[in-house]
Amino acid sequence: MSGDDTARVEDRLARVALTWLTEPGTWSVHRLVERLGAPAALALLCDGGAPEEKLRATVAARLTAGDPLAVAARALDRTDRLGARIVTPDDAEWPVRVDDLRRLALSGASRRVDTETAPPLCFWVRGAWPLAEAMERSVAVVGARAATSYGLHVATELGYGLAEREWTVVSGGAFGIDAAAHRGALNAGGVTVAVLACGVDRPYPVGNTALFDRIAETGLLVSEWMPGADPLRPRFLIRNRVIAAATGGSVLVEASARSGATQTMRRALAINRPGMVVPGPVTSAMSVGAHELLREQPAARLVTGVAHVLEEVGRIGADLAPPARGPRRPADELDDEATVVLESLPRRGARDPDAVAARAGVSVRVALRKLSLLEELGLVVRRDGGYALAPPPDRRAAAAGSSPADGTG
Amino acid sequence: MSGDDTARVEDRLARVALTWLTEPGTWSVHRLVERLGAPAALALLCDGGAPEEKLRATVAARLTAGDPLAVAARALDRTDRLGARIVTPDDAEWPVRVDDLRRLALSGASRRVDTETAPPLCFWVRGAWPLAEAMERSVAVVGARAATSYGLHVATELGYGLAEREWTVVSGGAFGIDAAAHRGALNAGGVTVAVLACGVDRPYPVGNTALFDRIAETGLLVSEWMPGADPLRPRFLIRNRVIAAATGGSVLVEASARSGATQTMRRALAINRPGMVVPGPVTSAMSVGAHELLREQPAARLVTGVAHVLEEVGRIGADLAPPARGPRRPADELDDEATVVLESLPRRGARDPDAVAARAGVSVRVALRKLSLLEELGLVVRRDGGYALAPPPDRRAAAAGSSPADGTG
Repeated sequence: MSGDDTARVEDRLARVALTWLTEPGTWSVHRLVERLGAPAALALLCDGGAPEEKLRATVAARLTAGDPLAVAARALDRTDRLGARIVTPDDAEWPVRVDDLRRLALSGASRRVDTETAPPLCFWVRGAWPLAEAMERSVAVVGARAATSYGLHVATELGYGLAEREWTVVSGGAFGIDAAAHRGALNAGGVTVAVLACGVDRPYPVGNTALFDRIAETGLLVSEWMPGADPLRPRFLIRNRVIAAATGGSVLVEASARSGATQTMRRALAINRPGMVVPGPVTSAMSVGAHELLREQPAARLVTGVAHVLEEVGRIGADLAPPARGPRRPADELDDEATVVLESLPRRGARDPDAVAARAGVSVRVALRKLSLLEELGLVVRRDGGYALAPPPDRRAAAAGSSPADGTG
Repeated sequence: MSGDDTARVEDRLARVALTWLTEPGTWSVHRLVERLGAPAALALLCDGGAPEEKLRATVAARLTAGDPLAVAARALDRTDRLGARIVTPDDAEWPVRVDDLRRLALSGASRRVDTETAPPLCFWVRGAWPLAEAMERSVAVVGARAATSYGLHVATELGYGLAEREWTVVSGGAFGIDAAAHRGALNAGGVTVAVLACGVDRPYPVGNTALFDRIAETGLLVSEWMPGADPLRPRFLIRNRVIAAATGGSVLVEASARSGATQTMRRALAINRPGMVVPGPVTSAMSVGAHELLREQPAARLVTGVAHVLEEVGRIGADLAPPARGPRRPADELDDEATVVLESLPRRGARDPDAVAARAGVSVRVALRKLSLLEELGLVVRRDGGYALAPPPDRRAAAAGSSPADGTG
């Protein structure tokens, strides 16, 4: 083993030990690791050198339960036996977008889950896809557990539609909207990733076990917690920052007031990721959180389907987003003769004015006048001695140039 | 009759003649009236002096059908016989907000209904309320004719809730959302105004005749067209600018893509009136226009009920808008005992701690501790030797200071 390799193994082991010794997301731990490297940060913490009283107490309590490096070594074994793997920032498959959590600061934050939002130290991953590759073109679809049939329908359609366009659908594996989005993606034969708040060997909730098995087969189960870790309540909220940061954008489908899903959205918006919200009936309690977000967060974007979502996230990937809709298109303004002349042109290639006139059932004089109008409107071009439909405008340029929201990944 | 009175009678007659000779909203006619006064403008037009070829042709065509002043005199008679009246800018009941149409310029407008948006020359009014007074605290509720039961429900609730708070509900008298909003207001015993695109003697559609009769009894029927005028198709769109301008704000409930109701909203937004939109299920074609507006018009505000509407329009009237919602309120943070103590205070007046304790089912010691906590949180005040609910914060100040939208009337 080379010196470099030894250093990597030590780094990995120390990161695993640190996720056990302290909870993921702790800023002071992240800063120590950035400054000293993971092994030295671990040594410092174990020597009682945590920079904060509260963290010193947490570390001291954990140390009475075992030796961090021994726990980490056992976790590595267990990970291997599971057929899972550990991914650290050293690995090619590290999803670099999560490092944007460095700039996450939530205004008015006071609870631990809102203040301790540092980037992850490492991930456990189950599934064949390289994590970075799966996440590159990805959209998070999140929402209520107690979703309505409307929300489930919309989430399934979004999951299906995104997967069909080869976007990875990321969610939290929960009942309701999460499960519907995962299922939609699976049904389209696409890739879906469940980011868990517990070990990847015992995904929660148990009622979704069959779903998790399908996800592990064709997509990925991902967690910041080691195998065997319990889905403790605060962990769901800590986990949400990863869903927000690892994806190209997040869509909220249904949420009651102040739900965990709206929290994911606030995290996404806080690091300038597209934050998209599907509205619903104002008579539904399950859309209150969605409408609140749209009212309170100027950057949140109302979306009604896959096309709108791709308009937002398409900018960050290689996708061809549909052109942004103007209030009116030239073709809407045509009179009946111009419309019929336009429709008389072939889908490919050119046609001469006589043939156009014959097809359209108008005189050649009228055909020529309307063709010249259509040319002026940019709907028709002269080619090969006749007229042809104008090529569509450069859609990527149009989408990038005119999309009103600002955030990109 | 004094010289002034004669001038007023002549002005009124000329305005009536002009609405017959040219269609309401024509800018060049409005400018002539502003510059020369209505009688001279009428004389100029009748002499073939219209500044535009097209207007000259319209005037010439109309002149073959009758003498404008004779037509106007007959219209005045007919108006009297109907028990209706004509209102011009000279009258105290002129709804001055419509003069804001002077600054209405719609971007990209090319169709006549989008370009000819000048302020009205006069109104026909049926009903007892002075028009200006009825319109002072008013909200327009507009939407699809082919509304869904969801939309009808929301529009009825809005109409009812606004009327209950003594806001006038203005709409166009059409089937669907318009009728639901009018009915909601009538059921609350409130004032509602139907702005018509035809004579006030023959409100359209005929299927709403019973509704129009109820409106005329307790509210107002209003039109820019003289009695007997037909509800020609373009007149509905011309009429929409009055609904947008005469009210303190407009709410769109349901609309298909590019409906007439979204047009009313664009007019309202273009003159900086609050433009509010109720979202709906993205699976409903009847919400497509609403969602489009919210996506395309940054100033359009998503609202889910009367409280949100009053937040927007309350700024312009004397209404107490509810305080803008913060992300968390002190009362949300209370423990069970504090909550029950708070709920044990009377809605008016004070109660002594013993009585509070008895009502809350807690010891006097606990009651005192919780009352002191509630006092610190600003939820409770000491009064008359006991404790009372704190008065609500100055709601008008809160609404004016923190409401994010910008437009006012």
